[in-house]
Amino acid sequence: MSNASHLTLDLNAPCMSTGHLVVAKGADCEALSLPVFCLNKGEGPRLLITGGNHGNELEGPIVSRRLVEWLPEAQTCGRVIIVPEINPLAVQAWTRNTPVDGKNLNREFPGRADGSVTERIADAVSRLLVPMADTVFDLHSFGPQWEFPPSVVTHPIANAALMAKTVKMAEAFKFPMTLIWEHDDTPGMFDTFVHNQGKVFICAELGGGAVGSEVLSIYEAGVRNALIALGLIEEEAECPTFRQRKSSQTFETLLSDRLKSPAPGIFEPRCSVLDEVKPGDLIGVLHPMESLSAGSIDIRAPAGSVVCAVKSARYMEVDEAVAMLARPLER
Amino acid sequence: MSNASHLTLDLNAPCMSTGHLVVAKGADCEALSLPVFCLNKGEGPRLLITGGNHGNELEGPIVSRRLVEWLPEAQTCGRVIIVPEINPLAVQAWTRNTPVDGKNLNREFPGRADGSVTERIADAVSRLLVPMADTVFDLHSFGPQWEFPPSVVTHPIANAALMAKTVKMAEAFKFPMTLIWEHDDTPGMFDTFVHNQGKVFICAELGGGAVGSEVLSIYEAGVRNALIALGLIEEEAECPTFRQRKSSQTFETLLSDRLKSPAPGIFEPRCSVLDEVKPGDLIGVLHPMESLSAGSIDIRAPAGSVVCAVKSARYMEVDEAVAMLARPLER
Repeated sequence: MSNASHLTLDLNAPCMSTGHLVVAKGADCEALSLPVFCLNKGEGPRLLITGGNHGNELEGPIVSRRLVEWLPEAQTCGRVIIVPEINPLAVQAWTRNTPVDGKNLNREFPGRADGSVTERIADAVSRLLVPMADTVFDLHSFGPQWEFPPSVVTHPIANAALMAKTVKMAEAFKFPMTLIWEHDDTPGMFDTFVHNQGKVFICAELGGGAVGSEVLSIYEAGVRNALIALGLIEEEAECPTFRQRKSSQTFETLLSDRLKSPAPGIFEPRCSVLDEVKPGDLIGVLHPMESLSAGSIDIRAPAGSVVCAVKSARYMEVDEAVAMLARPLER
Repeated sequence: MSNASHLTLDLNAPCMSTGHLVVAKGADCEALSLPVFCLNKGEGPRLLITGGNHGNELEGPIVSRRLVEWLPEAQTCGRVIIVPEINPLAVQAWTRNTPVDGKNLNREFPGRADGSVTERIADAVSRLLVPMADTVFDLHSFGPQWEFPPSVVTHPIANAALMAKTVKMAEAFKFPMTLIWEHDDTPGMFDTFVHNQGKVFICAELGGGAVGSEVLSIYEAGVRNALIALGLIEEEAECPTFRQRKSSQTFETLLSDRLKSPAPGIFEPRCSVLDEVKPGDLIGVLHPMESLSAGSIDIRAPAGSVVCAVKSARYMEVDEAVAMLARPLER
């Protein structure tokens, strides 16, 4: 067997195959075997689905496992490759970053074949899987520290045609929120690596907080909707119910829409995601905890907007993000 | 100023006072100043409310802060002492245990004046605060890794009269669930230390997962109900609405009601808290992640019961608890 990273299955074989993406061993750890599922049903779209990029976002691995159960019967054409957990070391540790080298996999693309383990994973995914697909769904979530609605998130893309195609694909999930998210330029993201090849990259951000059965069903329904839109399965798309509502909206959030902690202390959320707020409405309260005679500080909406993310109550340092606001996308 | 742990306020002073419980410095860290609020309105019940015993359970500190705002006007008699965070080191680190010495404060009572910092906190609370109260509310939650309904939990108490008094007080919160919880004998719990003095100790377990505005309001309403039952405030008690229902039930859970992970892998919850289940109903699925050809393992209810706790999806080792079942208490 090769010492270099390699696949133990032929992604061009007809029908269903399962095997592993073996990530080469290095000085820091042994070789990793990442389970891979591949289903070829002839001509058609070529899709790669990945989960477990961050190890404390378990929605992706579970939705991936569910797909593996029903896709062999449902898929009518094209190729779907599924890797439920691309960072098993982080998943097992329930940490965002890889515990072995402390690196964030989503900041290491395209990786290095002779780097530390996180770089070797990025390299194996970039070289052996991405070339086999035209579209990538990377299944994330906002993690345990945030309240966030089931969403697809995309950063603005310079290539206007690719941006339009990406937003259309994102909206096909029919999640409660599609979010165009301005962010600081961050090198090494999986998103950017795939975009730079002119391919559609979808970052699903499947909610936050505890991962329960109800949200998992919503996430699975969203991914099914996207597979229908791609033409991989022939079913009826349906907007999933979230908090007694079936609705799907596209919003835009800018760097200036992040509300930050004005002081160290405990943040108390006073709003929920998808709440519409007027200028001056209360978003949360910051409680300095050194003394009970020190007053608490109100954090208010600077403008009319919709709440797209709220931090779960916890102790915050000054200037940590406590909420994100957004406005309906103007087209 | 004394080098020993001490209070900077007189808990017998009339009306409202604020100050600190100073926990003595030791070899491992400097002295800590824990904010304390005290409100004396003459004869009546003497209550101590503590939050932040575990640092990743922020519901207690926030509900405590809210009480400080409206209690001065609402309280009509007796004495209420509030310490929003008895373990500020753990709260700031968002960890269950104290980061300095790695200890779980709720396993260190009555503590030691010359011990490590967690033992010194337990000692200061035990000696300087507990004697000033007849009833203690310690505001916990199930933390970010569980789905759990707002509840008051009590372990069985050998003293039958104290047990009856405790259950009555617990039910006065009118939370969706009151839970009598059989557990392994665990030395050093705050509960046991207070029970051994014949006093009522209430452990509120204020839900799990992300801490949002809706659950915080339920928790505050429950604590207000309990203050009404104690006779400290004169208002109408009201059962809070949880998931569109106003209901309050008392359950019992035994050691044998804990369901455990049958193998290492990712646990997927398939039920929600307060779901009624029949024998054989699906509670969750365990997905071994080494290979996609290995089958997933169903975890089923062994008997008719109600789900009282479900673990959030995450990677589990074999034999870790994934859910707790319960039955209505027979009296």
